[in-house]
Parts: sequence; structure tokens; C-alpha cells
Amino acid sequence: MSILNPAVLTELEKQSIELPSWAFGNSGTRFKVFGTPGTPRDPWEKIADAAQVNKYTALAPSVALHIPWDLVDSYDDLRKHAEDLGVSLGTVNSNTFQDDDYKFGALTHEDAAVRNKAIDHHLACIDVMDATGSRDLKIWLAEGSNYPGQADLRGRQDRLNESLQKIYARLGDDQRLVLEYKFFEPAFYHTDVPDWGTSYAQVASLGDKAMVCLDTGHHAPGTNIEFIVMQLLRLGKLGSFDFNSRFYADDDLIVGAADPFQLFRILFEVIRGGGLNNPDVAFMLDQCHNVEDKIPGQIRSVLNVQEMTARALLVDKDALTAAQKSGDVLAANAVFMDAFYTDVRPALAEWRETRGLAGDPMAAYAASGYQQKIAADRVGGVQAGWGA
Amino acid sequence: MSILNPAVLTELEKQSIELPSWAFGNSGTRFKVFGTPGTPRDPWEKIADAAQVNKYTALAPSVALHIPWDLVDSYDDLRKHAEDLGVSLGTVNSNTFQDDDYKFGALTHEDAAVRNKAIDHHLACIDVMDATGSRDLKIWLAEGSNYPGQADLRGRQDRLNESLQKIYARLGDDQRLVLEYKFFEPAFYHTDVPDWGTSYAQVASLGDKAMVCLDTGHHAPGTNIEFIVMQLLRLGKLGSFDFNSRFYADDDLIVGAADPFQLFRILFEVIRGGGLNNPDVAFMLDQCHNVEDKIPGQIRSVLNVQEMTARALLVDKDALTAAQKSGDVLAANAVFMDAFYTDVRPALAEWRETRGLAGDPMAAYAASGYQQKIAADRVGGVQAGWGA
Amino acid sequence: MSILNPAVLTELEKQSIELPSWAFGNSGTRFKVFGTPGTPRDPWEKIADAAQVNKYTALAPSVALHIPWDLVDSYDDLRKHAEDLGVSLGTVNSNTFQDDDYKFGALTHEDAAVRNKAIDHHLACIDVMDATGSRDLKIWLAEGSNYPGQADLRGRQDRLNESLQKIYARLGDDQRLVLEYKFFEPAFYHTDVPDWGTSYAQVASLGDKAMVCLDTGHHAPGTNIEFIVMQLLRLGKLGSFDFNSRFYADDDLIVGAADPFQLFRILFEVIRGGGLNNPDVAFMLDQCHNVEDKIPGQIRSVLNVQEMTARALLVDKDALTAAQKSGDVLAANAVFMDAFYTDVRPALAEWRETRGLAGDPMAAYAASGYQQKIAADRVGGVQAGWGA
Amino acid sequence: MSILNPAVLTELEKQSIELPSWAFGNSGTRFKVFGTPGTPRDPWEKIADAAQVNKYTALAPSVALHIPWDLVDSYDDLRKHAEDLGVSLGTVNSNTFQDDDYKFGALTHEDAAVRNKAIDHHLACIDVMDATGSRDLKIWLAEGSNYPGQADLRGRQDRLNESLQKIYARLGDDQRLVLEYKFFEPAFYHTDVPDWGTSYAQVASLGDKAMVCLDTGHHAPGTNIEFIVMQLLRLGKLGSFDFNSRFYADDDLIVGAADPFQLFRILFEVIRGGGLNNPDVAFMLDQCHNVEDKIPGQIRSVLNVQEMTARALLVDKDALTAAQKSGDVLAANAVFMDAFYTDVRPALAEWRETRGLAGDPMAAYAASGYQQKIAADRVGGVQAGWGA
Repeated sequence: MSILNPAVLTELEKQSIELPSWAFGNSGTRFKVFGTPGTPRDPWEKIADAAQVNKYTALAPSVALHIPWDLVDSYDDLRKHAEDLGVSLGTVNSNTFQDDDYKFGALTHEDAAVRNKAIDHHLACIDVMDATGSRDLKIWLAEGSNYPGQADLRGRQDRLNESLQKIYARLGDDQRLVLEYKFFEPAFYHTDVPDWGTSYAQVASLGDKAMVCLDTGHHAPGTNIEFIVMQLLRLGKLGSFDFNSRFYADDDLIVGAADPFQLFRILFEVIRGGGLNNPDVAFMLDQCHNVEDKIPGQIRSVLNVQEMTARALLVDKDALTAAQKSGDVLAANAVFMDAFYTDVRPALAEWRETRGLAGDPMAAYAASGYQQKIAADRVGGVQAGWGA
Repeated sequence: MSILNPAVLTELEKQSIELPSWAFGNSGTRFKVFGTPGTPRDPWEKIADAAQVNKYTALAPSVALHIPWDLVDSYDDLRKHAEDLGVSLGTVNSNTFQDDDYKFGALTHEDAAVRNKAIDHHLACIDVMDATGSRDLKIWLAEGSNYPGQADLRGRQDRLNESLQKIYARLGDDQRLVLEYKFFEPAFYHTDVPDWGTSYAQVASLGDKAMVCLDTGHHAPGTNIEFIVMQLLRLGKLGSFDFNSRFYADDDLIVGAADPFQLFRILFEVIRGGGLNNPDVAFMLDQCHNVEDKIPGQIRSVLNVQEMTARALLVDKDALTAAQKSGDVLAANAVFMDAFYTDVRPALAEWRETRGLAGDPMAAYAASGYQQKIAADRVGGVQAGWGA
Repeated sequence: MSILNPAVLTELEKQSIELPSWAFGNSGTRFKVFGTPGTPRDPWEKIADAAQVNKYTALAPSVALHIPWDLVDSYDDLRKHAEDLGVSLGTVNSNTFQDDDYKFGALTHEDAAVRNKAIDHHLACIDVMDATGSRDLKIWLAEGSNYPGQADLRGRQDRLNESLQKIYARLGDDQRLVLEYKFFEPAFYHTDVPDWGTSYAQVASLGDKAMVCLDTGHHAPGTNIEFIVMQLLRLGKLGSFDFNSRFYADDDLIVGAADPFQLFRILFEVIRGGGLNNPDVAFMLDQCHNVEDKIPGQIRSVLNVQEMTARALLVDKDALTAAQKSGDVLAANAVFMDAFYTDVRPALAEWRETRGLAGDPMAAYAASGYQQKIAADRVGGVQAGWGA
Repeated sequence: MSILNPAVLTELEKQSIELPSWAFGNSGTRFKVFGTPGTPRDPWEKIADAAQVNKYTALAPSVALHIPWDLVDSYDDLRKHAEDLGVSLGTVNSNTFQDDDYKFGALTHEDAAVRNKAIDHHLACIDVMDATGSRDLKIWLAEGSNYPGQADLRGRQDRLNESLQKIYARLGDDQRLVLEYKFFEPAFYHTDVPDWGTSYAQVASLGDKAMVCLDTGHHAPGTNIEFIVMQLLRLGKLGSFDFNSRFYADDDLIVGAADPFQLFRILFEVIRGGGLNNPDVAFMLDQCHNVEDKIPGQIRSVLNVQEMTARALLVDKDALTAAQKSGDVLAANAVFMDAFYTDVRPALAEWRETRGLAGDPMAAYAASGYQQKIAADRVGGVQAGWGA
């Protein structure tokens, strides 16, 4: 009998992780962006690639867009294209960091004209959401300053709130705004939304449709991320995850690659706080495949989340609670670690096969010939990246 | 003419920084506590030493107590003793980390009996406040866990809130509760109030008399502390500072010693946000003089705060605003740095003399013979430290 | 058939991890040391406890001493006591941080008299080594300064070298000196041996019998420790490990508890560089069981090392090399992770039983009644800790 | 009389700081590179801009080149161009991170063909040095891996040494190789030369003409950089500095902008160790002016170094030594801080004027009209950046 009991499998069956369209384009560091054969040239090809991830895993039924990187003439057509490939269009991500006007801020800018331009961009994103049927508008504010004195921290925070109020006012009844925080980069002295507390204070002032987005790579060294997961769930404000992993800064590596035990702890708190398969909490990837292949990189990523979710679901909660209540530190830790150390991969492979999927999605994709096909077909044009 | 104009001097004249009684006792690391001749043996002697700091600086008119380290039979007598020495009794600090019952938590403990004991301790602290006339109850929760799985993070957070509610309910009309957060130590996996966001969420749920305490040494590496100062002032929840400085963890070094420019930036945001000489914001030291003399260590500390406040008051705000608005990064930074680099020490020495103080408080204290006197007089007994 | 093939088991059978005597005494933070029933009162009882760890795991055949914490009248008797219990006496650790003379340094002190006292202490430690038959003298220099300007960094480094030369000169032909580095604590501005580079430069100047000790908790945040393991093995200067784990600073948690994947990577580089079961590389624990039981804490620790060693031995090196050579990032990572994710615990339990050990050493120890016995027997006296 | 005595002024007069040609081109983050009017289009214009910095400060008589960013047909002509503008060509920087072949390494690559290509690139750089009369070849290895298992750390380190041997063998008698280390980025799991210890071990094995380059932004959080300065000077291996500053990662901000006190401490150790105006130690900037003007950004930078050098030269060494020897922590720190807090700017301005320079180089440059001229003249063409 499988180590994964029916209750666990029921949860796993419901799990879904949204893919970012930009993960299929080229990315890199400020020093170099390496291209790879077969990289998509437009949003249509990105979605085709994303659909491959879902095809082999049944874990990734939606794709997040980034505006303007994913500008198309007809979002209706793009939506149909996605649906034809078995996926839907998800979160819409705005961009306030690549226009020359935004050099010193966008929603926080000293100049009302620039702020209004940035607000209008978000309203245009909501128009896209209306067309795609997306629920969430995700705002990552790449705004801040590089030198002490350069900016008025307080004035910017107040202006941010005013700008967000205006965007929030345009959300439809079933739409949400999720505000992402980030410790640093691209700004190197101050960032306008640097931590969960700031994001929380901002969205709490907006209303029920505003939530916090937690990107696992956006914290100071040593931060206990699962604690923040717990706290935001407790406060009813955890709107979404951007999954990735890191050794140093915002490295944007494959989720679970740098510290699988941390991913386990995060997912345990998700489950503990009622966040798993809870529509209020969206799960997304936000990664950069700088040196590895992109489609299998995304397959590996959603499998990592699935495998760690399975392990986290295996924690014997009664035994854990008993050990916690009795102050038996080693016993409580042992219950916890036992789940983490349990190898769920064979059982997951078996279960996949019962669902008509390949037991080994990585191998199945590699054997499919898709990678070779796109490498051969996608000749000419400009490979997608962050600049286009 | 002095570089410190009357408006600046008016602010400086109003400035006060509370001293912690425990700074005059011995402290150290887990490896060793070094004693020094003349260390106080009881609260009475601690307050006498604290009064010396105020005598030479006119900056430190009150002394914070720590219960049970400063337990005395009559707080009325202690208050009179303080008043006779020209100082008052200030913030009362509770202690939930040195009783064997608190090994696995106090206000957060799984066991209601332990929680109630910890709550009662805080109510007893409020009794002390009633006797001393203190306004603030400061709660630093040294609670957390060392191993993943050891504790139920969510349950503890909920219990913490319940416990705080009970303590809050007993506050008098003019009393406040300030909740201190700390990144880590003594717990090494999770801490129940690890960041400003958690402290803010907890105190916001309590009411207007609950505020956040910001200890400058209690943050993750790289944290922009002045941003948090700005945010808490903006949210109306910055209740107090615990000043000290650090290179690594919670090193509890003399404020301004590790990064004077950071102290300048913090004080600039205090001024910018209306927190200077605002009764809502209490300024305290919380330091350990492990290897240096204690009384001059405290004198040096309050002078550091005064000197940096003076520099921060010198920032040419009009020029700064103009440079910020025009996007002139180098000009804005130059205005800011010009104030930081201005040597205010001679002007402050002159000003002190006009107020009947010694121009050089460090030299005046050294010349006073007090240190030699207490070294000779305080023979026998047990030197005060954290354990007693 | 076991997933652990004979070659793996041969390596595992040879593995040994030295226990620190002080892990069985009480430890804590600067805020509080919690005691536990049954804590040893003297070195004899510490060794008896250490022998329990070896009894149930066959992994810990030796015990490191710390002078003066483990001062006894006759090391000959102590050695016989250990041998009677099936263990031997191992590394001798010196202490230059608990004498009042060492407040401002020991081997680095400005005053030659203090340096000589510290050198003499080390010579006395070598005398103990002669009596116990220990090979290694481990020097952790808790020396440094708290404030910029307090100390002459360069002069101290030169004096350190002179002092070490004198100690080195007294080593017997089969004895070694291992120099431990530490990022910070108890000094909070500078530490005289803060990184592997400094330890390496110092020991390289001494000679072949001087090596570096790598404590896994003594690095800056984000440091790639397995890289240092690789480098020191490559340079022929990795003398020993102090195993423990950390989330923040030098937390001294159970090895593998904070980041099991990091432990796996470290052990992989140990194997890659020929350091496993190589007499030149000593493996030790150096942990603090502040809130958990000490003997089972040590059992858990050596099992963690054993389990991760087994996983690291399972890496398919041919497949890994092939993937590395072909630049297939995902394939190489998959080979690596496959070993990490393989659950070796059942196979290890079986193997233990074939060797006459309990499959579950934690359960066997718990069932033995030893803990209850020492709790009942060890009444009166002073529990051992870092101060005695 | 000036607070800067003749001995100090003599040192300051000799001081020189090399400018990086690339600081005058555009730079940014992976998210966006903002351009500015007047940005140079080629190496000739970069050198013209660099000469402006020297014109107003007399501090920056040489310019470092980066190959291939500064490829020209005739380095003889470029040298004459520089000389005509009053500057010389300095350090030559190689580039092994922007060729597609180097995706998985260059000097460390698994494939000998790639390694040879990278070695040949360095030999070509030495050819450039022969033509320009440059002394130093600076190697920053942007090599590493992103995922555990991706690369064989040990094999790469050995291959690195072989490659460096070959490059070293081609150095002329008066030429040097300086090896720069960096904590992370662009690689996010391991970097082949991540710390000073690795750089030191590598260059020590090469010979006397190989030295370490210390970039102030390339360390783990909390690292005591002045300690490394002291150690490398002590070991005779500090070849050069790359100056910049940082709050988080390798932020490449203006030197002294983030932590002026740290710059003071670094320069104090430079002086203490005999590194100031010592031909063995080259001082360079390596910064990115992402949001501020480039030429004034460089002027501000060299002035920051000059001002902090002046302060560091003011430390009363006799008083410092006396306080250190007596264990008077507060007195020693006070001597140190007194120099740091002394405002040397007015005295430096006066001194500049006696040398025929403007007292305020920033204002003089701004008034010169050069910035307006290049903005008007440099129309068309492609602005220089890291990619060209």
C-alpha cells in the first residue's frame, strides 16, 4: 500500500501552481544573459511551453502574464490559445521599472504626472484582467533609492498609499490586488516595500481585496520565512506565493533547490494555517533559468513543490502535538523530520501513473521531442527576455 | 557664532534618553562575564551610578527598571532615592526568560498555568509602575524554539495575543505597553516576536496604549532600520527605542559605535517623522558594557545620541527637498552628508558650558573621583548582573 | 537487498565521530542556563554519559576534553575509566577565555606576561595529551575586541603567530595542533582568527603538524561551507570538524537540524576530497543542548552524520561526472538530489541489527532506563557547565 | 593653521586612485539600464571623461581598461590620447563572463578547448599591457555554478590553478597578476574564487608577481574587511583595491557612501600596514553609477577616499597605542573616533587651492560646462555599457 493515504492524495490532486510566462524567456544577470535554442519569441510560444509543463505534471493549469512583456493585440485570442492547450491565463503582473520615466520611482514618484502614468498602467493591466478573466493583479514595486538622502522615505510611502488607493478603486468585485515586498534590488539603499510588515500595512489600509504576496527569495539573510507564512495566514492577508530559492540574494533559483527543508517547513505552515488548496492563497513560481533548460526547469520546480507538499502532509500531527505539549523537544523534532526524510517519490510516481500521467515527468518530457522541435522551429525573430 | 542655531539648541535642550539600570551591573557573553571594581550590588547603587550620567550630561533624567533584577521592598523609597539624586524611575521591564517554568515559553506557553504565571508577573510589574509613577511597561519576549517542529508557531501567536490582551486590560489610563521585537536569541529557530511587523500586528489589535519598541540591534543583517522608524512613526505606533549598536548579532555595543552614519540616518527619520521630543516616543539605551567601564560607557552613549541628533538637525531640509524633487541624486546625498560630516562637538561643548555643565563630560566624570570612590567603597556583597 | 551496498557499508563501519565532554554538561545563552535532572557533576560522569552514545550507535568511540572544565587529579585514571566504558579520550581543548587576565586577549595580549601564561596553559594541555594519549590539541581563540580602535589588529596577529610557534614547538612527533576559526562571539568587532584564510595562513607558517579546524557554525551568513571543505582538503590542511548547525549565528544546534542538505553537501565534499575515514581529518561534535536532553541529543547528532554520510556515499559519481561534463545542469543536480532524497534510514536500521546494535538507537536508549537512573542518582553536587 | 600638518599633506599629495573606464559608460541592474545624455560611445570618450576627474582633483592620474569593452585598433594611439589629457592607462581587466562559451566556466571549464580560449584571452590582455605600459593584469573570475551537483568544485579549483600558471608564465618582469575574489554573483551556488583565502592560496602558489585584489563590495554580510586588509598586508599579498560601497550585496555604490566609518577603518589599516602610497598596493574604483551622473560620481568618489585618508592620517597613534596597552577601551576608541569625526573638508579645500585646484571640485566641474557640452556633442552612436 502506498505511503500516501487517500486524504493526502486528495489534497495533492487539488494542488495547482501557476507558471510565470517570463520563465520561458531568457534571463540572466547584469553581466550576461545566455540564450538557448528554442526560446519563445512571443507570448503565444511562451504559453505553448507552459502548457508542456502542465501536460506532464497536471500541476500547472495557469500561466501568469507580465505587462508589457506579454502585450498582444487580442487577449481574447491569447486566452483561447491557452485554453486550446489546456491552460488558462492567470495573474497579471505590472511593470514600473523599465520605463525611463520611472528612474526615480513610479507609484511613489515626486511628480504627479509620473505617478499618474504608473497608475494608468495598472488600470490598463486591470483591463487586461477583464479580458483574460484573471483574478489577481500583482504589483511588485521595484522602487527605491540608492543613496541616503536621495529620497524622502516618508513622502514616498504616503504617495504609494494614495496611488494604491486609486488602483484598488478600479478592481472588480472578484478581482484582487496582491502587493509583493522585496528586501532589495534593483534599489540598493531603500526599497519602498521592503518587508512583509510594510506590504501588510499598505494592503490592510486598502481593503479586503488587497493581499500580500510572499516571494520566498525576497528576505534578509536568516529570515524565518515559515513564520511569516504563519503570521500572514493568521492575519488573513496571505494572497499569494512567488516560489523560488536562493543561497545569497534574490537568486531566483528553482524552488527547493537551495534548501529543501525550508520549503518543507513553509509548506507545513501553509497546511497548518489552512492555506493549502485555499482559493485565497495563490501558488506561483517566479524563477530565472539562467543556465538550465527552461521547460524542464519548470517541470522540476512544480514537482519539487508537489513532493514537499506530500512530505508535509505526512507529518503525524497528533504525535507532533503530543510531543509539543509535553515539551519533548527531540520527539517533536523527530516527528517533523520523519516526514521530511520519507521518500515520497516512488509513491508519487505510481500515483501519477494511475492518473494517466508518466511516472517520471522529466523523462517523459525529454523523450517527447518537444525540445528538439522548438529548437528547430523557432529560428529567426527575437528571443523573449525581460526587455521585450 | 555657533553652527548650532537657536532652533537646534532648543531641540537639544529638550532631549532626554533613559538609562537601563542593568547597564551598570555586570554583563557578558555565554562564555564569561567579567566583573569590574565598583559594580553596584543593588538597585540603589545602580541608580546612584545612573545619576552620575545625568549629572555630567543633563541628558539622562530617568532610569528604567528590570523586574526581578531590581526588586526592592519599597518602590516609594526607591523613587525618593532617585529623586534625591536628580533622576526619576522610568520604564519597567518584565522578565519571562529566567524562570525554569519558562523554558518553553511564558506568555505563549502551551500550559495555561505557565501563561497565567507570566501574566501575573506583568500585572505585578504594573503594580510597580503604579508605585514608581512609571508610564511604560516594556515587554521583550525571549520566547521561541530551537528546533523545527518543537513548537506550534501559530498556536503560540494566538496565545500570545490572549495573554497580551489580559495584561493590556490592566493598564491605567496613562500607562502604556511597548512590545519589543527581536530577530533571534535566546531562541535559535523561531522567535515569537521576531520583527516589527509582528509587533505591530499584535499591538494594533490591543489598542491605542500599545506600541512597538524598536531595539536597534534586533534586526536581520542588512535591514534598513531608518525605514522601519519612518514606517512606525507613519503608522503612529513607534513607542520607544532601545539604542545600542552591532556589527554582527545583538552585540549590544555602545550606540553609534559600530555605524555612526546609521545612527545619523535613524535620527534624521525620527526628526522627519515628528518623533523627536515627542512624548509618544521614548528614547532608551539598552547596552552591555562587557569590556569597558560602565558609567563612562553610558556617558559616551548619551553623548553619541546627542551629537548625532545635532548633526541630523543640521540637514538643510529646503536644499534637500529641492534636490530630491529635481532628481539630483548627488546633490541630495551631498546635502545629507554635509550635515553628517559637520563636526558639532566644539559647538556642543561650548553650549554645555553655557548651561553650567562641563564641556567634556567624559573628562569631568573621570576627574571627579567617583569611579575610585565606588571601587573603594563597594567591597563585599554580590555585584549586580543579569542573574540577580 | 539493501540500498546500501558493501562498499558503502565498509565506509560507514569505519566512521567515528568524537563527542565533546561539555555537551553533557549544562549550557545556555547569556540570558539563562537551564539545568536538567541527571546532568553530570564531574568529568567521570560526563564520560559515562558519552559512553552511552557509543553503546547505542558504535559511532562515537572517543571523547574530547576541555581544560580546565575537565581537570582531574589523574588522567591515567580517567583514561582507564573511559576504556572500561568502551571509549577513549580524544582531543584536548584549551581555554583562553574564562580567566580575568584574558579580558583583552591571551595568546595575542599586549602584555608578554599574559601571553606566557596562556602559552603555559597550552603546554599544560600537551601534558594532559601525553597522559591521555590524545593526538590533537585544539585551539579556539576567543580573542578579539569590541570597539574599533580598542586593539592593534596587526600587532595581535603577529603576537599570535609567535605564541603559536612556541606551543607548536612542544608538540610530540605524533601530536598535532588544530586551530579553529570563528566569525564572531565573544568579541563583537574583531576576532583574531575569524576565517579559514587566517587559520590557514597561521598554521601553514607553523608546519605539517598544524591544521585547520572547521566548525560548521562559525561562518558569515551565506558562506558556502562545502567549498571551504574542498579547499582545505585540497591544500592538505583540513585537520578536524566541529559539527553543529545554525539558523543565525553560532547557535550550536544539533548537526543537520537546521539545514540537512548543507550537511549532505559538506559530507559529499569530504568524500570527494578523500577526507572520509582519513586519519588526518577528525570528526567531532561541538553543540549545546540548551533545551533538549543531552544524551539523546548526542545520539541524534551522530545518527544524523551517519545518515547523511550514507546518502552522500550513494551519489552516482559516474552519472554525476557525465552530466557535469556535458553541461547538463538539471541532470547533474538530479543525480545529486536523488542521493539526498533517498531514505537510507530503514537500511541503516537493518544494518545496525546485523552488527548487534538496536535498529533504533534513540528508542533503545530511552528504553534502557539510564536517563531515569542518572536523574535519581545524581543528586547533590554541582551540575557541570561551562563555568566548572 | 591647518589641522592637516605637513606630514599628512605629503601623504595626501602622493595619493592616486585609478578610475575604471567602464564607470563612464552606462550600467544598471538585470532589470534595467538607464542611459544618460553625454555617455561616451567609445574608449576615447571614456578616457576624456576620466581626465576630467583628474583635472579637478589631481587624484586620478590613470584609467583602467576592460577588454573587450575597450578594444581599439591602436593602444599606442589610445595611450597618447590619454597622455595628451594628462592621464595614463592603467590596469587591464580581462573578461571571461560574456562569451557564450563561458556559460559553464572559462579558466575552470571542464573542456580544455574553452580553458585555452580563456587563457589566450588573458595572453592577449598581456599584449595590450605591453602596448599600454600597464603593470597589472586584473582577473575577476565570474565563474561558478548555480545548483549543487552542477559542477565539480575540486576539479575546477585544480584547473583554475593550471590556467593561472600558464597566464602567470607570460607576465613580464615588471608585470603583475592580481586575482579578485567575490562572494557571489553572477553564480548563485558556488563561485570559484569566493573569498580572500582562496585568492591568497591561488596567488601564493604562483609566485611573487601574483597578488590578491580586494573589492570592498565582495564579502559576506558582516565581514570585517579591515581585518582582511591587515592580514593581506601582513602576508605581503595585497595587490590592489577595488573601491565601492554596499548596503546589501555587490551594490557597487560610491565608495564611502554606505558606511563612511568602514572606509575610515579600512584606510587606517592601510596606513598601519604600510600600504598607503606603497607601489605594491594599487587603489582603484569599481563602481556603477546607475542613477547618478557619472563624472561627478567619480569625482565624489575620489574625494571620499581622500577625505577619509586625511581623517585616518589624523589618528593620534601615540595616544592610541598608550590606550591600547593600558586596556582603556573607551579611551582607545575615543582617540580613533576623534579622527573620524574631525571635519577635514575645509582644510582640504584650502590645500587644494594652494595647489592651483578648485577648493570644491564638484562645483568647479559643474560650472565648467563640460557636462552640457558632451550631452550636446555626443549625439548618435551607441552609448558604451557593459555589453560593448
